[in-house]
Amino acid sequence: MQIHQHAQPLREQVAEWKAQGDCIAFVPTMGNLHDGHLSLVEAARREQTDSNVRTIVSIFVNPMQFGENEDFDTYPRTLEDDTRKLQQLGVDMLYIPNIGDIYPDGVDAATRVVPPAALGDILEGESRPGFFTGVATVVNKLFNIVRPDIACFGEKDFQQLLVIRRMVADLAMPVAIISAPIAREADGLAMSSRNRYLSDAERADAGKFNLCLQHLVSEVQQGADSQYAVMHASQELENHGFVVDYVVIRRQQDLAVPEPGDTKLVALAAVWLGKTRLIDNMCFEINK
Amino acid sequence: MQIHQHAQPLREQVAEWKAQGDCIAFVPTMGNLHDGHLSLVEAARREQTDSNVRTIVSIFVNPMQFGENEDFDTYPRTLEDDTRKLQQLGVDMLYIPNIGDIYPDGVDAATRVVPPAALGDILEGESRPGFFTGVATVVNKLFNIVRPDIACFGEKDFQQLLVIRRMVADLAMPVAIISAPIAREADGLAMSSRNRYLSDAERADAGKFNLCLQHLVSEVQQGADSQYAVMHASQELENHGFVVDYVVIRRQQDLAVPEPGDTKLVALAAVWLGKTRLIDNMCFEINK
Repeated sequence: MQIHQHAQPLREQVAEWKAQGDCIAFVPTMGNLHDGHLSLVEAARREQTDSNVRTIVSIFVNPMQFGENEDFDTYPRTLEDDTRKLQQLGVDMLYIPNIGDIYPDGVDAATRVVPPAALGDILEGESRPGFFTGVATVVNKLFNIVRPDIACFGEKDFQQLLVIRRMVADLAMPVAIISAPIAREADGLAMSSRNRYLSDAERADAGKFNLCLQHLVSEVQQGADSQYAVMHASQELENHGFVVDYVVIRRQQDLAVPEPGDTKLVALAAVWLGKTRLIDNMCFEINK
Repeated sequence: MQIHQHAQPLREQVAEWKAQGDCIAFVPTMGNLHDGHLSLVEAARREQTDSNVRTIVSIFVNPMQFGENEDFDTYPRTLEDDTRKLQQLGVDMLYIPNIGDIYPDGVDAATRVVPPAALGDILEGESRPGFFTGVATVVNKLFNIVRPDIACFGEKDFQQLLVIRRMVADLAMPVAIISAPIAREADGLAMSSRNRYLSDAERADAGKFNLCLQHLVSEVQQGADSQYAVMHASQELENHGFVVDYVVIRRQQDLAVPEPGDTKLVALAAVWLGKTRLIDNMCFEINK
């Protein structure tokens, strides 16, 4: 596995692979890799069968997407473990950009990529102002450096996936975006680097987050009024010790409030368990 | 000359040219082409001598960069004349994107590229809020469609040139930005599509705009205090019937207010002559 910290040698290698007709598959991450991340590499590989797939993973804890009071400093950094996992998986290249390459004049002086407000300023974007601008900006830049044919994102960050798809469409970036399902622990907890912030007692309870989402989806599928079902789910979450940031039912395609006739929906939620913020979502369909 | 309105066939042609080893040179315009625009094509051609240069010009009057009370509707559209001029010049491809390709869901719902405030919200950006976001967004998108090796911009829009250079550096876009000097009429007036808004009487006076800028530069080069020289230039402009929007001396590299020791400067000004807004600038050096 090649490891690059600078854009230029990476670009030369990618150009060489492309000249051979290889397909470049890219998985941008913030590191601290778990099975969810690794499944993205495998999903990217499965996507193209005609040509040889070269997989590139980036690890970059992006300061622009962290708020002032968020966990940028404490975000888990486990580069040695990550490198070993990617090597075992047969990844072709690991890109670990240094901060100076990504933000040469600092974060505040950088040109930003700003998602449309209707998608970027709701839910996660409302709870974490500037978050999706940080995500879109760094992914745009990484795409311009790596120039992948396909890039793979996890469905756990469902809103992020839509923001990226939107950016790629709006800015005509020639990258195919594919997604992979949420990887879950045995008790249903969505895998996340932030799960390691949980105490043992909190971890024992954390699986109930997804269970409450499952109940919510079932209720709506069985015809319950969605406003009632959401209120019910919030109560159930609070009863289990979660502090609810939001629980909503939205349209899958654009996260707008569903209108009569919309059948492809998604339940999304963010909760606090002690000092740890968790997000989860479940896509589902209803008959109408 | 090929003419394309859609991205996909354009992309295929560009890929073919690139596979042959040709250099792709791109000149984005809003049409109503004058000698200034045509000099950009020639500058782009001169830049690369090793490989065959393919020149692509786009014509797109970009709604996102016009303010609510600006001249989007009346901006001169002279597609037949433009096409003929580009053909005569031997341009390889003219790209006339339709609005639906550039803003599929409308201007307001689009992902935007926002320059840093210190560069994008001053001078032209202060007088025309959102202008440089509109410019950066459409140029970013056009670059992603055309994927040029080099792109050429006029120095008349000096701040725009810096915004584009900044975007390309910040977002790691693999495009070399080159610039061409301001093309001027015999009396010094910078060529601009908006000059045709001038009445005959206004046109007869308009050359004095550049003359006042020349005086300003001379005064500063001869050691005058720049604050005094700028005030003097403003008065001279008002005496000639211009309404001054701004007249400033800034650093060439980033348009910051010059500090002691800065030697590469630029005088920039925007004025109204009747209902027409004109801009001009002159780069110069001082010994310090």
